[in-house]
Amino acid sequence: IFFKAENLQRGGAFKFRGASHVLALLGEEERKAGVVTHSSGNHAQALALAAQQAGIPATIIMPEGSNPLKIEGTRGYGARVVTCRNTQEDRERTAAHWVEKTGGVLVHPYDDPRIIAGAGTAALELIQEIPDLDTLVAPLGGGGLLAGTCLAANHRMTVYGVEPEGAADGRRGWVTGERIRSHTPETACDGLRTCVGETNFPILRSHLRDILIVSDSEAISAQWLIMTRLKLVVEPSAAVVLAALIRYPLPDAKRVGVILSGGNLDMSAWFCPGPSD
Amino acid sequence: IFFKAENLQRGGAFKFRGASHVLALLGEEERKAGVVTHSSGNHAQALALAAQQAGIPATIIMPEGSNPLKIEGTRGYGARVVTCRNTQEDRERTAAHWVEKTGGVLVHPYDDPRIIAGAGTAALELIQEIPDLDTLVAPLGGGGLLAGTCLAANHRMTVYGVEPEGAADGRRGWVTGERIRSHTPETACDGLRTCVGETNFPILRSHLRDILIVSDSEAISAQWLIMTRLKLVVEPSAAVVLAALIRYPLPDAKRVGVILSGGNLDMSAWFCPGPSD
Repeated sequence: IFFKAENLQRGGAFKFRGASHVLALLGEEERKAGVVTHSSGNHAQALALAAQQAGIPATIIMPEGSNPLKIEGTRGYGARVVTCRNTQEDRERTAAHWVEKTGGVLVHPYDDPRIIAGAGTAALELIQEIPDLDTLVAPLGGGGLLAGTCLAANHRMTVYGVEPEGAADGRRGWVTGERIRSHTPETACDGLRTCVGETNFPILRSHLRDILIVSDSEAISAQWLIMTRLKLVVEPSAAVVLAALIRYPLPDAKRVGVILSGGNLDMSAWFCPGPSD
Repeated sequence: IFFKAENLQRGGAFKFRGASHVLALLGEEERKAGVVTHSSGNHAQALALAAQQAGIPATIIMPEGSNPLKIEGTRGYGARVVTCRNTQEDRERTAAHWVEKTGGVLVHPYDDPRIIAGAGTAALELIQEIPDLDTLVAPLGGGGLLAGTCLAANHRMTVYGVEPEGAADGRRGWVTGERIRSHTPETACDGLRTCVGETNFPILRSHLRDILIVSDSEAISAQWLIMTRLKLVVEPSAAVVLAALIRYPLPDAKRVGVILSGGNLDMSAWFCPGPSD
C-alpha cells in the first residue's frame, strides 16, 4: 500500500490543490474582484490560504455554528469571513449576495471541473512516483477528490471510492444510477457528509469499480492504526480508505495507491490532557 | 526550521540507524553468535527489527516493568526477549549472562562509537538535503543522537542540545565539566531519562554551543503544535527541540535543522476514546 499523504499538504488537506488551480485560471479582472465561497471546513481555509498567496481577495461565508478555530484560521489567512445562519439556504443566499456585491467568482468546494482537476493532481503525482500501481482508493464525500482520482487513473487501473455507512449517498446513487441530492448524514467523518455533486457523479459512474462502505468504528480504528504505526495525524474522513482495505479482501489489488485526504483533526476532542499551559 | 522526521523512520525512531550500523560492522562469526542488549524502549525494538532484517539472532533483556506492548513488539520482530528485575544491576547482570551463554556482541543503546556514528546519519542527510543550515538542534538523553549530530556538523554550524528540566544531567555536567553518572530523572520525556554516556560526553563538550532546558509542559505544548500543524505524531522527547526554539530567541539561528527523534507515543495514554472496537 502506497500512501499519498495529503495531510502534509498546505492547509492540511488535498483541498489546497483545487483552490490554487481555480485561482491560477482566473483572468486579470477576476483576480481583482476576488473569489467567494461558502464552507464550514477545509475548503474555506484552503481557498483563503491559496488566495492570500496569490494576492487575490477572498470572501468566505461560514455558518455561525462553525468551529471557532476554523473561523479564526480562515481569518488568519487574510480572508474576509462573513458568518451566516446554519441553513444551506442562508449559506447560498449570503454567498450570492457577496458575489453580486464584489463581482467575485464563486468557487464551489467540489462541484466544479477546475476543482476536480486540481484535486486529481494528488493521484497523478502518486502514479508518477510509484510505478505499476494496479489500484487506487480515495474517500468519497462531494466527489471532488474521487472524480479527480478517476481522471488521473484514466482507466489504466482500478479505482474504488470509500464512504462511511452514515453518509452512503454515493453508493446508493451508484446502485440505482440516480444521484442522491439530499440526505441526513450521521457520521464522525465530517469531511464526507455532503452529497455527490452533479459534475462529479457521471465521472464516478464511468470510472469506478465500486464504492466500498465502512462503519465509523472501522474508520476510527484505521485512524488509530495510521497514527500509531505511520506516525501521521489523519482525520477519520481520511482513514476510511485503510478501513476499507482491512475490511474488503480485493484479491486483484497487489500494488494499491491510497489518498490520505487530510489531517485537520480537532485534536482537543481526542486528547485527554491537551497542552498543560 | 527544517525538520528531519525520524518519527517516520523504521521502528518509529532514529534508533534504527545505530542498530543497523552495528550489525553491518559485524564479522561472520559475530553474525552467527548474534547480539545482546538491555533496554525497555525504542532501542530494544530497533535492534530486534534490524537483526531480523539482517538474519542475525538478537537477545533483548527487558525489565519486567516494561510496557507490555513494547515487549510484544520486540518479540514480534523475532527477538528472544528475556525479562529481568527492574534494577540497573539485574539488567546488566542478565545481559552479561546472555553474552557469555550465546557468545553474542553486547550493543549498548548509546555509549558506543558505532551507535553514535549511525545516529549521526540523520543530521548528515539533513545537511545534504538542505543547503546552508547554520544551526542544528537535537534532544539529549544518553547522547547517542546528539553526539552523532555534532560529528555530522563537524564544526561547520552551531549545534545545541535540549534537555527537559527533570533530566538535566547533561547541562549540569556541561557546566562543571564533570559528567553526571547517575541521577533520579522526573520527566514525561521518557526517552531522555538516561545519563550522558562516557563516549558521548567529550564529543558534546568539544562541539556544542549550549544545552537548552525546557519544562515538561513546554515540551507537551510543542508536541501538540507539531501534531496539529505538522500533522506528525511525535513523542514528548522529540518535541523538546521545538519547545527550545520557542523559548530561546537564538538570534544567530536563521536556517535551523531540527532532529525530530521519534514518534513512539503511548497513544492510549493520550487519546480519550481510542478505537471503538
